[in-house]
Amino acid sequence: MTTRASLAATVFCLAALAESAPPALADEGMWTFDNLPRERLARVHGFTPDDAWLTRLQRAAVRFGRGGSGSFVGSHGLVLTNHHVVAGGLQRLEATHPGLIERGFLAAGPDDELPLPNLEIRALIGTRDVTAAIAAAVERAGEDPAARARARAAAAARLVEQAEDGDDVRAEFVELYEGAQSWIYRYRVWDDVRLVWVPEQAAANFGGDPDNFTYPRHDLDAALVRVWKDGRPVDAADHLVFADGPVPTGALVFVAGHPGNTDRLQTVAQLRWARDRRLPESLEGLRTLREAIARYAARGADEARKAQMPAFFVDNAIKSIEGRLGALRDEHAFGLREDQERELRARVAADPELARTIGDPWTTIERFLAERGDELLRLRRRSQLTSPWIRSMSWAMQLVLMPRQRALPEDERLPGYRESELARRQRRMLAPVPVFADLEAVMLGHAFARALALLPEDDPARRVVASLGDPAAAARALTTGTTLADPDVRRRLLEGGAEAIAASDDPMIALARRLAPIVEQDARFERDVVDAALDPAREAVGRARFAIYGTSAYPDATGTLRLAFGRVEGYPMNGTLAPPRTTLFGLFDRSLGFDRRPPWALPDRFWERRDRLDLATPVNFVCSCDIVGGNSGSPVVDREGRLVGLIFDGNIESLANTYVFDPERSRAVAVSAQYILQALDKLYDAGDLAVELRGGPQAPR
Amino acid sequence: MTTRASLAATVFCLAALAESAPPALADEGMWTFDNLPRERLARVHGFTPDDAWLTRLQRAAVRFGRGGSGSFVGSHGLVLTNHHVVAGGLQRLEATHPGLIERGFLAAGPDDELPLPNLEIRALIGTRDVTAAIAAAVERAGEDPAARARARAAAAARLVEQAEDGDDVRAEFVELYEGAQSWIYRYRVWDDVRLVWVPEQAAANFGGDPDNFTYPRHDLDAALVRVWKDGRPVDAADHLVFADGPVPTGALVFVAGHPGNTDRLQTVAQLRWARDRRLPESLEGLRTLREAIARYAARGADEARKAQMPAFFVDNAIKSIEGRLGALRDEHAFGLREDQERELRARVAADPELARTIGDPWTTIERFLAERGDELLRLRRRSQLTSPWIRSMSWAMQLVLMPRQRALPEDERLPGYRESELARRQRRMLAPVPVFADLEAVMLGHAFARALALLPEDDPARRVVASLGDPAAAARALTTGTTLADPDVRRRLLEGGAEAIAASDDPMIALARRLAPIVEQDARFERDVVDAALDPAREAVGRARFAIYGTSAYPDATGTLRLAFGRVEGYPMNGTLAPPRTTLFGLFDRSLGFDRRPPWALPDRFWERRDRLDLATPVNFVCSCDIVGGNSGSPVVDREGRLVGLIFDGNIESLANTYVFDPERSRAVAVSAQYILQALDKLYDAGDLAVELRGGPQAPR
Repeated sequence: MTTRASLAATVFCLAALAESAPPALADEGMWTFDNLPRERLARVHGFTPDDAWLTRLQRAAVRFGRGGSGSFVGSHGLVLTNHHVVAGGLQRLEATHPGLIERGFLAAGPDDELPLPNLEIRALIGTRDVTAAIAAAVERAGEDPAARARARAAAAARLVEQAEDGDDVRAEFVELYEGAQSWIYRYRVWDDVRLVWVPEQAAANFGGDPDNFTYPRHDLDAALVRVWKDGRPVDAADHLVFADGPVPTGALVFVAGHPGNTDRLQTVAQLRWARDRRLPESLEGLRTLREAIARYAARGADEARKAQMPAFFVDNAIKSIEGRLGALRDEHAFGLREDQERELRARVAADPELARTIGDPWTTIERFLAERGDELLRLRRRSQLTSPWIRSMSWAMQLVLMPRQRALPEDERLPGYRESELARRQRRMLAPVPVFADLEAVMLGHAFARALALLPEDDPARRVVASLGDPAAAARALTTGTTLADPDVRRRLLEGGAEAIAASDDPMIALARRLAPIVEQDARFERDVVDAALDPAREAVGRARFAIYGTSAYPDATGTLRLAFGRVEGYPMNGTLAPPRTTLFGLFDRSLGFDRRPPWALPDRFWERRDRLDLATPVNFVCSCDIVGGNSGSPVVDREGRLVGLIFDGNIESLANTYVFDPERSRAVAVSAQYILQALDKLYDAGDLAVELRGGPQAPR
Repeated sequence: MTTRASLAATVFCLAALAESAPPALADEGMWTFDNLPRERLARVHGFTPDDAWLTRLQRAAVRFGRGGSGSFVGSHGLVLTNHHVVAGGLQRLEATHPGLIERGFLAAGPDDELPLPNLEIRALIGTRDVTAAIAAAVERAGEDPAARARARAAAAARLVEQAEDGDDVRAEFVELYEGAQSWIYRYRVWDDVRLVWVPEQAAANFGGDPDNFTYPRHDLDAALVRVWKDGRPVDAADHLVFADGPVPTGALVFVAGHPGNTDRLQTVAQLRWARDRRLPESLEGLRTLREAIARYAARGADEARKAQMPAFFVDNAIKSIEGRLGALRDEHAFGLREDQERELRARVAADPELARTIGDPWTTIERFLAERGDELLRLRRRSQLTSPWIRSMSWAMQLVLMPRQRALPEDERLPGYRESELARRQRRMLAPVPVFADLEAVMLGHAFARALALLPEDDPARRVVASLGDPAAAARALTTGTTLADPDVRRRLLEGGAEAIAASDDPMIALARRLAPIVEQDARFERDVVDAALDPAREAVGRARFAIYGTSAYPDATGTLRLAFGRVEGYPMNGTLAPPRTTLFGLFDRSLGFDRRPPWALPDRFWERRDRLDLATPVNFVCSCDIVGGNSGSPVVDREGRLVGLIFDGNIESLANTYVFDPERSRAVAVSAQYILQALDKLYDAGDLAVELRGGPQAPR
């Protein structure tokens, strides 16, 4: 009840203050390292980070693939992240190390560390503002919106290519403030990542789906991996050292990580579109998919095991979307966001020069969504057919697209199919990954059924699906008939090029051949129609905000490195207060409260070694830092830059963070550094790792 | 967020089922012992209580004054209840035993037990249906509504007098089903109640106001008192024995206690009146009073101590009203209650005989509230001036009214001033009670200021208050000028009768003399206008429900003995599940989570003796029994009739219980019997009491 009221109150504050101050209050904001709100940090928290503090933190922070964060915590390439950030890698390891997820893992020494297939870690090494270069390229393209969109994409791609250096240094085109700023981010990239330690799933994910996105919490959602290069652990002089003791209540803390996506700068029309069309449909799709997976899991113990990870990800997505929808559906809060936008538009209109350069992008976006909304939804529905969640279908589509795309000029290709990107794509495609054909059949069958239900009869993709007959039977035939699960088969098709693809009688390849032209056409539509119309409008909105608030506001999250700050503090919850931290006492309490039943069962070692533990050790804590999905695995550091915690979740109220940050109630949830040390020392017989994390001798085990 | 949705869902179920089944689902209901839903108990829970089981439970159950419950737990008059049920008595003991509330108390032996002044315990010994007798008396009074109301009140009073037997056996007139049934309840009454054991306030009320009305919870809200009669502990052969071990999750349990008041049978017009007028005004009054008390408490340590209990009660009332208002303000739920009423009215209308005898009481009530609503509010506002919370004012008013009322014929007197009631009233008035003049000044000043603000200028009570000048100064002058805090002064005024009152120059008596005629007139208006109009209508609604659902529905709570049943089970909360129980692990966790700061500090003995405790001991548990205020102190028993817990609160969702019971989320919160035993044994060195509670040797200490 109170959540919504409070959200509304927050937005109300934002609206009330919009006239005089930038719309970022209290400890709100995911800031780029080059634009920290130094004045506010000094004024409110009495803290002025120096360059050494910032550099060390930036160098220690790493990103996992596209969806997680981590940090160097030892000079010999030791990296700390969440168990759930490496969950995909662990599932792939299950193929060769069955039971690893259930039992956890500790490498006896360096030779014993397990390479995590298909896992890539990157650290930011530099950023460059390319706003002017992009603007110039777009200007040169003339007036046609589609031509401008193509020129923008091509200029960005070329800048990325220029900034890269083989496989080791890669670049990314980053748009901040809805595209009002363009940047090139350069990263050092490593792909030899080895597992050092993970606890049992039951300890890492204690409380399972029910406790996910909630607090009070008691998870050891941590993993240690090591980054190798050329057969040796990499040097990581700028790594973080664990703090000596627990972080006190009220302490100022910082989160350095890679928040994935926020929509705080989106227009009301975009939010309404998400609220009324996009999210409800996504939610329904996920719920029916979840039901299908549950039916599959109910078939037997083996199926239940195979369904575990997909079920976790789908549950997670459902709870996340429900939270976001809840935030958008709060009438009062939404009304106040409307007020905010009205205010911004009025201020633009009141400044003739601004009014001339900005125009009315709000109406442009609103009209586009009104006119093209159905087409956009169809695009999304079709894209579900080739979702990366269904591996065999995803491989087939990439195999079919590869020769087709290579036949095109670089600037005409789909994103991810430029020459410089192909080698990595091929490597990813050839890595051995376990595929469960029966589970793939369930998910593909669900995708087929959704396509038949949601797409109009004359839709080209629906026609292809309809021609296959009963969706469940067709999916079963395809997933059992295909041999793409075999990496050698994929390699032969890759190396054979267009001819091999044309000659293949693999049923999944055959299906991909029919769908590929549709995928390509949709991508062109996305760029030449959607982006061409929306990008300039979004950018104009961003410029308007930028003109009025400058860099005293923070840009929406983009999966790039950001710094958030806040305090260790509880919040109003359930009619009372949630405490700043939980302890090992609380872990045992919650397990016993549920009769030690899953998902609140604990590994035996917890019960057997209970008396060795200091039960007052903090397990998880909350802080008022502004985070969002992608921040998982981020280090939490104190003023001295010492690691005090490991972000792994937000409370249920933080699900609104996508759209609005409520400083009163939104909280980031972290594993306490002390819990990790205590667990390594007392539960996992890995005292030497604990010593290393405390800054002691750095010895690869 | 979820609470409202779920409430709505519950009400929706009720509405949907109204056509075919009585509106009591799942484990809903506070049943009289003579009308248990035996069929449902047998069908759903496979349980058929036999007479011995019921008799023993009924004889063991006791009521504390008007506001709490308890049970005999030892054959020598030992009674278990909540710390907060005897809190008023403890505060009175503070006058002679300073520090008792903070430090707790354990009597070394029988001679050491502390008499609790002004505390009365009663046990139900018989009930009699007098519906016919009341109906006959009302019929004899003719057609005039006021005459009928007077006749009804007089008949009830006479029946009560006839059923009483000195001070030991007392009777109560009880109306069930909105007055469709009238009963006389007879009680054995004891007034020599002595304190045996209470823990420290910090253990009993761990979590203070924040945790009040919430769960998960960790309170030792328990007290043991002993009932004495003629210098000896009374015999209590039918007492409850503590269970050997913790009650398991899912177990069927019963709560025998005295729920005070519910409004589940009220009409929509009454609920709307409560929602829109009565409750918001009460809430505002309590909030401003709370602020005044907080300002008082901030003056110093002594004031803070004196303000503790009033602050607790006001906080409690605020949270309770907020919860009830929240339930009433949920639009969907309220809309569905409207549907329910529409349904009932339609069924009445569809039955010609019923339509004739019932008429349209709903419209009668609605019209009365519309026409007389302002007057009703004024009545309530005036009554706040003589609130029992302000002791000196309350004494003064009783002293002034006593001779005035005795001059009237019995049937014309105010409730509580009949000859048979006067002796007890006098005894209560003469008991020594500590009065803090400065605190009384704050509360009286608040009452004055509210009267000036809320009553119209021509209101007679407001005129009296206005004549006193500045409300704060007037209240200070009155409370410091009065000598009523001295029991001897009160005795002399009582014994002196009308002459002594007329001659008194005590300022509080002088004020009461001016207000007394207004109080009397308001009481007459209440009986001759309000009750005369509403009682027959409420009764008609009750008869309508009774005609359609019979005794397969339960009556609203009336402060009389009821049996509720349900299961030990958690519930959805805060995005996850609340566990069925908390443990001693959780107690220490929550204290440490808040840095051991009040109200989550624990008495030192908890920390010092931590290692002696079995931390897995359940502390509090929740069950789906239907309870409400007044149930505090109720025993929770299992199928075998063994005491497994002690009700002390409900979760935040249960605040809606006044209007609607949500079986999915409403939970009663109980102290686990095991926690009480463990605390007595390991923390309070009262192992012999623990033995006694387990059914061992019954030896007064």
